[in-house]
Amino acid sequence: MQKEIGPCELTPREEVFSRIGTFQNRLKEKQIDAALLIQNVDLFYFTGTLQNGYLFIPQEREAVFLVQKDYARASVESPLLCVKIESMKGLPNLLHEQGGEWKRVGMELDVVPVSLFNRIKGLFPKWEILSISDEIKELRSIKSDFEIRQIKKSGEMVTEVFSSVKNHLREGMSEVELDGILISMGRALGHQGFLRMRGLNQEMMNIQVVSGESGSVTSFCDTPLCGRGVTPAVAQGSSTRKIKRDEPVVIDYGGGYNGYVTDETRVFVLGRLKDHFQKAYQVALDILRETESFARAGELPSRVYKRAQEIAAREGLADNFMGYGEGKVAFVGHGLGLEINELPIISKGGRRPLQPGMVFAFEPKFVFPGEGAVGIELDYIVGEKGLERVTRFPKEIVHL
Amino acid sequence: MQKEIGPCELTPREEVFSRIGTFQNRLKEKQIDAALLIQNVDLFYFTGTLQNGYLFIPQEREAVFLVQKDYARASVESPLLCVKIESMKGLPNLLHEQGGEWKRVGMELDVVPVSLFNRIKGLFPKWEILSISDEIKELRSIKSDFEIRQIKKSGEMVTEVFSSVKNHLREGMSEVELDGILISMGRALGHQGFLRMRGLNQEMMNIQVVSGESGSVTSFCDTPLCGRGVTPAVAQGSSTRKIKRDEPVVIDYGGGYNGYVTDETRVFVLGRLKDHFQKAYQVALDILRETESFARAGELPSRVYKRAQEIAAREGLADNFMGYGEGKVAFVGHGLGLEINELPIISKGGRRPLQPGMVFAFEPKFVFPGEGAVGIELDYIVGEKGLERVTRFPKEIVHL
Repeated sequence: MQKEIGPCELTPREEVFSRIGTFQNRLKEKQIDAALLIQNVDLFYFTGTLQNGYLFIPQEREAVFLVQKDYARASVESPLLCVKIESMKGLPNLLHEQGGEWKRVGMELDVVPVSLFNRIKGLFPKWEILSISDEIKELRSIKSDFEIRQIKKSGEMVTEVFSSVKNHLREGMSEVELDGILISMGRALGHQGFLRMRGLNQEMMNIQVVSGESGSVTSFCDTPLCGRGVTPAVAQGSSTRKIKRDEPVVIDYGGGYNGYVTDETRVFVLGRLKDHFQKAYQVALDILRETESFARAGELPSRVYKRAQEIAAREGLADNFMGYGEGKVAFVGHGLGLEINELPIISKGGRRPLQPGMVFAFEPKFVFPGEGAVGIELDYIVGEKGLERVTRFPKEIVHL
Repeated sequence: MQKEIGPCELTPREEVFSRIGTFQNRLKEKQIDAALLIQNVDLFYFTGTLQNGYLFIPQEREAVFLVQKDYARASVESPLLCVKIESMKGLPNLLHEQGGEWKRVGMELDVVPVSLFNRIKGLFPKWEILSISDEIKELRSIKSDFEIRQIKKSGEMVTEVFSSVKNHLREGMSEVELDGILISMGRALGHQGFLRMRGLNQEMMNIQVVSGESGSVTSFCDTPLCGRGVTPAVAQGSSTRKIKRDEPVVIDYGGGYNGYVTDETRVFVLGRLKDHFQKAYQVALDILRETESFARAGELPSRVYKRAQEIAAREGLADNFMGYGEGKVAFVGHGLGLEINELPIISKGGRRPLQPGMVFAFEPKFVFPGEGAVGIELDYIVGEKGLERVTRFPKEIVHL
């Protein structure tokens, strides 16, 4: 009896052109003549299609998407001018045909590998190539109404999955078993299949089920809870550990709808948790309530972070907040959109004010070494007057 | 009643040191003084742990793994000397402490982004940095007995999943619904959660269920079958299309055990397929049998590719072989290991002979535009005397 969430819309034509227009304004401000974009997510953002190619955006004139594969699909999905290109070698000729002279050209240097960069430099020896990654990230951090609708649909998927946990969680099942069941639920609801994280070595799972002491296993991930995983080769996520009574089962689920991700966490327990877990969970709720009381457009992420940390410290939980020991992370929230590590970052150093249309996951969590973890993760949309929740506010740990 | 496949072994100590020793010999041959490795999969290969850090391998002397996070887990998992490093800035001091002078230093320039490269170059202005990626890929293409054991376990997982399809496939269910069920089965069997593909923009799903005309949808993926996906933002894989009777349901499943992937495809049908699908399937079987009759260590991939194409052409299926129109790909097989796009590539241009210990997926497939696809994908281990199958040879389309 699963509800289907879908079908997915194409990015509206006017939105694609408005994104390109805003980006062209940034190019002007930065005195960059043009940008050549290659990363698949940026291509999707600016073209409306994820097909493979080179997006050339001059400061003035029309953008052109040079499509390597699949031209037919790109032409249907993108409102931009699409031109077929056989290989990278065709770039100089095709760009020459666009007319114009470009000297300072922006590229996504945070993700473009050196060898690919060198091949492009070889094709355009006169270009001075600069990084345009920060400008793209900033632009992408402000979500349109269309994007917020996709994010809300992704949130509905997560709500649906969490509400079904009670039907599946039972003593003695392994973390990966529950993980698989919840993944398959999301997929049947139209989950896109995977989530994206920008950068070299950035990998993530759609779900993490950690029970009992699994909640305190540390690993390479820049997240307060990592999970043990089933192998050192994928050292994160659910493990083969059997779920027991009276211990926290922390489920972090990433929705994925039409490219847009959400990232939420809930705690479940078969039986009853020890008092210190119960207390820490209440502190997480306090932090959420306090954040909702003052955070809005104009507020500094550093202040949001500081207030959260102050509450944790006041309750004697500073050491446990956002990880323990080497596992501690330096943030309490992160931007969401087409990737799961977007701007803003809610951290000590966050000095750029929140802006209307930003979306972030906020995740006060507490780790008790050798015992486990509790916490909540909720996604918020930043507005002029306050934060809007993507999903419902969870009041209690779900006791089963 | 699911069998558990596990638990996962750590890479044996002597194997880690032997991999490093072989790599040091290549550094000597290439007159490269040292290598600084960063990509997570290469780190796992050479250290036995996927934790985050910098692996420094001098041509002579001991390799050292400078671990950023998580030091405790890395120290347990890796037999190498592990040293804690707080941030990249600590590299010059820590490498200075190792003694030695390095001028020509190898890095993985096929994956290291420009901005990261520039930061490292800033720390080591005297280094001449060269690409060491090809040497790593060649080394990794020859699998040890330990690696082949992991690959076989990954194959067992896939066999188990395929044998369960008959219990789940039914008319009217969507591709994503079946996809989710089979993913959850794999996960319960200890599937690592995702598969890896090297390079910028290289993404893949663990599974692809394509039914009827979905089998002929073209997209950006460099694969003969792409699938429509559920959104243009993830333009590959299973879709919400409902599965019908008398059409091919092609399931491509990627096993993942202890880091090692397998990649196999089978065809299922509720009812009976039209004759041209039946015939094309028989031709795929012929190609597999023919390949098994002559391919072995010393054979050229280009000859294996040519023979497959000749058989397709002889049967009047040249246009349909390995995709149709813009969707056609230029290979019929690809190496497997920790990543799904390893060496060897079985293509027209494959001029380096197969070597014992190579493992590759071989996937003769036929696409009929607007109608669908059929084909088989089997994984092989290259031996001196022939090919060894990772899983069983499938004789027939599974009729249900």
